Amino acid sequence: MASLKIPANGPLPEEDSEQLHKAFKANYNKNLLNELDKELSGDFERAVMLWTLEPVERDAYLAKESTMMFTKNNLVLVEIACTRPALEFFKAKQEYQARNKTSLEEDVAYHTSGDIRKLLVPLVSTFRYDGNADEVNMKLASSEAKTLHKKITEKAYTDEDVIRILTTRSKAQIGATLNHFKDKFGSSINKYLKEDSENEYVQLLKTVIKCLTYPEKYYEKVLRRAINKVGTDEWALTRVVTTRAEVDMERIKEEYLRRNSVPLDRAVANDTSGDYKDMLLALLGYDHS
Amino acid sequence: MASLKIPANGPLPEEDSEQLHKAFKANYNKNLLNELDKELSGDFERAVMLWTLEPVERDAYLAKESTMMFTKNNLVLVEIACTRPALEFFKAKQEYQARNKTSLEEDVAYHTSGDIRKLLVPLVSTFRYDGNADEVNMKLASSEAKTLHKKITEKAYTDEDVIRILTTRSKAQIGATLNHFKDKFGSSINKYLKEDSENEYVQLLKTVIKCLTYPEKYYEKVLRRAINKVGTDEWALTRVVTTRAEVDMERIKEEYLRRNSVPLDRAVANDTSGDYKDMLLALLGYDHS
Repeated sequence: MASLKIPANGPLPEEDSEQLHKAFKANYNKNLLNELDKELSGDFERAVMLWTLEPVERDAYLAKESTMMFTKNNLVLVEIACTRPALEFFKAKQEYQARNKTSLEEDVAYHTSGDIRKLLVPLVSTFRYDGNADEVNMKLASSEAKTLHKKITEKAYTDEDVIRILTTRSKAQIGATLNHFKDKFGSSINKYLKEDSENEYVQLLKTVIKCLTYPEKYYEKVLRRAINKVGTDEWALTRVVTTRAEVDMERIKEEYLRRNSVPLDRAVANDTSGDYKDMLLALLGYDHS
Repeated sequence: MASLKIPANGPLPEEDSEQLHKAFKANYNKNLLNELDKELSGDFERAVMLWTLEPVERDAYLAKESTMMFTKNNLVLVEIACTRPALEFFKAKQEYQARNKTSLEEDVAYHTSGDIRKLLVPLVSTFRYDGNADEVNMKLASSEAKTLHKKITEKAYTDEDVIRILTTRSKAQIGATLNHFKDKFGSSINKYLKEDSENEYVQLLKTVIKCLTYPEKYYEKVLRRAINKVGTDEWALTRVVTTRAEVDMERIKEEYLRRNSVPLDRAVANDTSGDYKDMLLALLGYDHS
């Protein structure tokens, strides 16, 4: 459920753009985009930029950021690959190619190595079947739960069957497999992974599982860490708010309140200021009345 | 270049279908598709069935055949993954999901193992950048040619960089890399692979390289083997003729003539008979006049 509220009798987009155009061009005889670029800066600029992009353009932009040398961020790649519907992720990959003249797959494969590559490359490559609960194969869920249990208890986290199951099966099928795991072996797969959670690969594996099975909880945690960090992590805050405002922000707000006993908009308001704060609160559906 | 010739003043498709409809229904009061199914059999039936499908449906059908237990054929998967333009292959994967309620990726990953899986899964997963000659990175081609040479001379055929380069780079980029390989190291990568060509994995690797860089030669060889086989391999013959008739069959015919000193249509005519023969010859653009 989206958080952004659009006024019932607001101006038409055409009227808005005409107003902006006038404000920058007719009054000052200057170009809108150049002026926006000059007028805005820092966190507010990034928020405006990300928000004004179409979702697939935004994902292509974030993915490119994540494959670049100095901003490399594998967790963001997992987030994009695992929380978007398969076709939307595919369209982001098309947009990535149009912008960069390379594929996301080749860039990720080139910039990673070892175990991280083994998990991340298939994750961004597969065109996953979206699937639904009716199409789950319960026999397969049972046998693959056993496979996962065996490998995880042996600490064979990089085993190819572990990677195969998590990177190729539909989310519905993986959900059934992990439920079966919990029922049969008494605790969730994440519990089993916890003891090695210092390991970078295991962290990535846990993020994959979280993003595939419980995206709202994943995003709640990203927001919690961003807000609680000394100095606030505006990079993550902006990313989550702009990418989820029109998707599942209401559910993320519920999880945030449940986990932190503070409403998300209040937490954001306390940690931000100025235009940046106003923009985030608007996207969070904050009601000024 | 396509081989199929469409008569300049032929009947409209609507007229054809009306004729077929009348032949089966008005005259005999029977349903067209049921009758076609009964009328046709064996090789002719398969040829009609494959030919009447849209290209992406045909690929989805062939891919499913290739992942099924008793018709498993990894070479056909390589062929589809490597010779189709990236977007066409992607659409075949969508069609595969619509038909089977599973992804091609999960079926291939589930039915393969070991080295074959290591190569085949990324191959069918990646959404390759189509690329063109202008977009080739020559510095990268040079460095990746060295990487390939090092690994291949060490016989590290399953090395992850070998697989990464061949499964993620654009065809144009791979072409440049392999040209660089030949210029720098004196012979083609396939020459280096030849001494281990008994090995199933190396065969697959060679097929990948051939399909990516010289599809007409690849198809010529498939046809040559199908025709020269005792009893003829109609399964392969039908597949190649129906999938390439509208794509590059004229080029394949050139290669066939060059390599066998016999025109392809004559070779096909000598090895087939009846309706099946007539259909293949029509698709090959055989001129009766």
